[in-house]
Amino acid sequence: FKGLWSNLRAVVVNSWEVGRSDPRKVVFSAKLGLALALISFLIFWKEPLPDISEHSVWAILTVVVVFEFSIGATFSKGLNRGLGTLSAGGLALAMADIFTVGSLATFAKLYPTLKAYEYGFRVFTLTYCYIMASGYRTNEFMGTAVDRFLLIALGAGVGLLVNVGIYPIWAGEDLHNLVVKNFFNVANSLEGIINQYLNCVEYKRIPSKILNYQAYDDRLYTGYRSAVESTSQEDTLMGFAIWEPPHGRYKMYKYPWRNFVKVSGALRHCSFMVMALHGCILSEIQAPADRRRVFQDELQRVSTAGAKVLRELGNKVKKMEKLGSLNILDEVLKAAEDLQTKVDRKSYLLVDANSWEIGKPPIEFQDIQDISKTDDNDPFKYHGYHSFSEARLDLGTSRSPETTNLPFAATNGFHKSLTREFSFKPERMVIQDEGDTYKSASVLSLVTFTSLLIEFVARLGNLVVAFEELSETAKFKAPVAEGKVE
Amino acid sequence: FKGLWSNLRAVVVNSWEVGRSDPRKVVFSAKLGLALALISFLIFWKEPLPDISEHSVWAILTVVVVFEFSIGATFSKGLNRGLGTLSAGGLALAMADIFTVGSLATFAKLYPTLKAYEYGFRVFTLTYCYIMASGYRTNEFMGTAVDRFLLIALGAGVGLLVNVGIYPIWAGEDLHNLVVKNFFNVANSLEGIINQYLNCVEYKRIPSKILNYQAYDDRLYTGYRSAVESTSQEDTLMGFAIWEPPHGRYKMYKYPWRNFVKVSGALRHCSFMVMALHGCILSEIQAPADRRRVFQDELQRVSTAGAKVLRELGNKVKKMEKLGSLNILDEVLKAAEDLQTKVDRKSYLLVDANSWEIGKPPIEFQDIQDISKTDDNDPFKYHGYHSFSEARLDLGTSRSPETTNLPFAATNGFHKSLTREFSFKPERMVIQDEGDTYKSASVLSLVTFTSLLIEFVARLGNLVVAFEELSETAKFKAPVAEGKVE
Repeated sequence: FKGLWSNLRAVVVNSWEVGRSDPRKVVFSAKLGLALALISFLIFWKEPLPDISEHSVWAILTVVVVFEFSIGATFSKGLNRGLGTLSAGGLALAMADIFTVGSLATFAKLYPTLKAYEYGFRVFTLTYCYIMASGYRTNEFMGTAVDRFLLIALGAGVGLLVNVGIYPIWAGEDLHNLVVKNFFNVANSLEGIINQYLNCVEYKRIPSKILNYQAYDDRLYTGYRSAVESTSQEDTLMGFAIWEPPHGRYKMYKYPWRNFVKVSGALRHCSFMVMALHGCILSEIQAPADRRRVFQDELQRVSTAGAKVLRELGNKVKKMEKLGSLNILDEVLKAAEDLQTKVDRKSYLLVDANSWEIGKPPIEFQDIQDISKTDDNDPFKYHGYHSFSEARLDLGTSRSPETTNLPFAATNGFHKSLTREFSFKPERMVIQDEGDTYKSASVLSLVTFTSLLIEFVARLGNLVVAFEELSETAKFKAPVAEGKVE
Repeated sequence: FKGLWSNLRAVVVNSWEVGRSDPRKVVFSAKLGLALALISFLIFWKEPLPDISEHSVWAILTVVVVFEFSIGATFSKGLNRGLGTLSAGGLALAMADIFTVGSLATFAKLYPTLKAYEYGFRVFTLTYCYIMASGYRTNEFMGTAVDRFLLIALGAGVGLLVNVGIYPIWAGEDLHNLVVKNFFNVANSLEGIINQYLNCVEYKRIPSKILNYQAYDDRLYTGYRSAVESTSQEDTLMGFAIWEPPHGRYKMYKYPWRNFVKVSGALRHCSFMVMALHGCILSEIQAPADRRRVFQDELQRVSTAGAKVLRELGNKVKKMEKLGSLNILDEVLKAAEDLQTKVDRKSYLLVDANSWEIGKPPIEFQDIQDISKTDDNDPFKYHGYHSFSEARLDLGTSRSPETTNLPFAATNGFHKSLTREFSFKPERMVIQDEGDTYKSASVLSLVTFTSLLIEFVARLGNLVVAFEELSETAKFKAPVAEGKVE
């Protein structure tokens, strides 16, 4: 009994938390309760009309089924239901073959372009069968159809009135907030990843959830993952939002919700680069700390400026403001150029500088056209490199047997990644005896990191274009502060 | 009239296509028709029991609502419905306050962990209200509840019998096929991308749909995109599959569907690298063709071997076979090592070799620790690089004004990407006058491409681990051909 009591307590506490974090859920529940109470009241009140009262289930059904969280969902389901009912009623009067009609309606439901009306077809089938059934029983097709129509209209009317009239919840607003949230999430991820990279913080053991792209509570990971994963949520919300009438801040007929999704898509295109940057942290080949430090300031600046652009765009979307006269990308482009400049100036740091002493290429090698031939004919010229490579070759194959031949049971409990576990950890295993070997591979990984970051900046341009399209089509207001300067 | 006729023709032709490409849809439609005909027949046959016949709608409702495409969906909805009905019936006998119960049930529906039972709560609310309504009217709570229960049981029975008994459609099988398909899609994407990269095929204008991560018919793009985007579909199918009893090739209690999703997640982790490789083709900075040619053979080998591993794993998953005694990764690891070896040997090709003549670093520069200080104190040492960088600086800023200040209307029609449009096209604008400038940036992009490819290979290891876990938990059979050798 005590266990039950504490369970109940936990449920109450949790419910309170859910209610507090999103009070709209509480309001929505109360609204549905109210609508049901109203419809029940209306039906009992109509006691003089027993015919209606007997089929009261249809009104209740309509309320329960039409009542959706957001207004857009309510309308789209409502329309579906209306269409389904009307066409079923019409067809029932004309035809009388349950098997054929049921099959056809179901097949139409699975027809790709009619997917959105799935719900309508279901109601259609239901209505048709019911009318047929009642008709056979009472031979009063018309009466049944009219009764039912009245009850459904009553249910839909009460449902819509309560749902739209009292504290309406708009899918469009949710979509708007989701897009804004994604901007800030990606910005946080970007900053966090660059910081972690510069501080050379490695994962002790990479969580297998990240390796299998499952949800995992890692600050850097959740940031971009939420932006990448919100595709289907956005599509659903957009599907509802386009049903919603102009309201609140979205006072426009045919509001361009599609452009919000497009901006979010452009942001997603950027966040794939953030994901690739995170991949550099997850990778086994890690650039040495001292080289990272050389580019620290520039990387930091790009990161800060990039995150600033994302946050600023996020705020603009939130406040529904146009861009100011200043180019929002100025700072981040300048920072990226400085990074590129530094990379160019110090590109000798990005290949293993020590290696150049061993096999420094003769001048004629720089004539690139025939380099492959010359080189292949003289395999021992680069003996120094060659032996290094074999060292790595060993490391590579030493990884694979663990992957495939180790008895599986050992890993079953932790779901840990074998590959990462047994792969070479440079600091401990390699660098001490063969520092140069490791460097030539690891130093190149710094190039990858910087190019990915620069590509991220390039993609920001596309994001700005998408935002401008949105700000034009959705008629965002001119920015407040800068508006005076112009 | 003619237009109507040709429209009708098109619909028929299309329907035929849909039916032919997935005959299961036709079968499913026929099944629902059959179930509805059966239930109608049963109800009319029971004419002697007018009470039952009057509420026949509940049986029809149950069939229509429970009848889902896959068996798993049918069972999970059926259970939801059963639970909802029973608890509502019980509660209706105990309490009698529509507003409170309706609100509470709706709130519980929105409670995150109960999301899966959303449907059950809806039925609960509906049943409760209906029973209360009938009860008020006739004061026969028990009678209504029992009648309804019988009818629902009848509907569910007929529905389940027809759906499971005749040509059942399993969600688990769909999940299995989806995972297999993803393997082949990613393999095709990988091969296609490397081929395109080596043949230096550039997009004339990058489709804005790709830049906004929307669906777009590009062979390389759809391959990895389908794997990346199938997350929610997999989750849905898994949610249904775990309800399905052992059947066909999945003869096991608690079949590990979760592991299929995990393998697919690991594959997704790989395909993010394929996506990043594609990003190198989309990027503005392109490595010169002659340098790519130097690494052609090695890149090609890694690509072929990598795609082969993916296809082999895909086939193993399809045939439900374990891995053989040979290490499936041998070939691709060897190829990746050779690529890495070549990169090490030719790393002077990956920075701009010509630049080394201008500002060849003195030996003491290779002591990396204090390099940043020395260099910053002598800014003119690298004047050659510096002026190059400024040239790029111009290019960068010349891009941004187009992005932000160009009158928007011009792009509205095509939705084309301005940034890409006005950005520098190396071949035409830069290379002729300032070949070296471009090279130093573009050549580094080859490093990025190779490192991403090598990271892809590293991630394959993790995929193999996930596959082995699946093959153990799902008790895949031993491979046929190699089984004898062991």
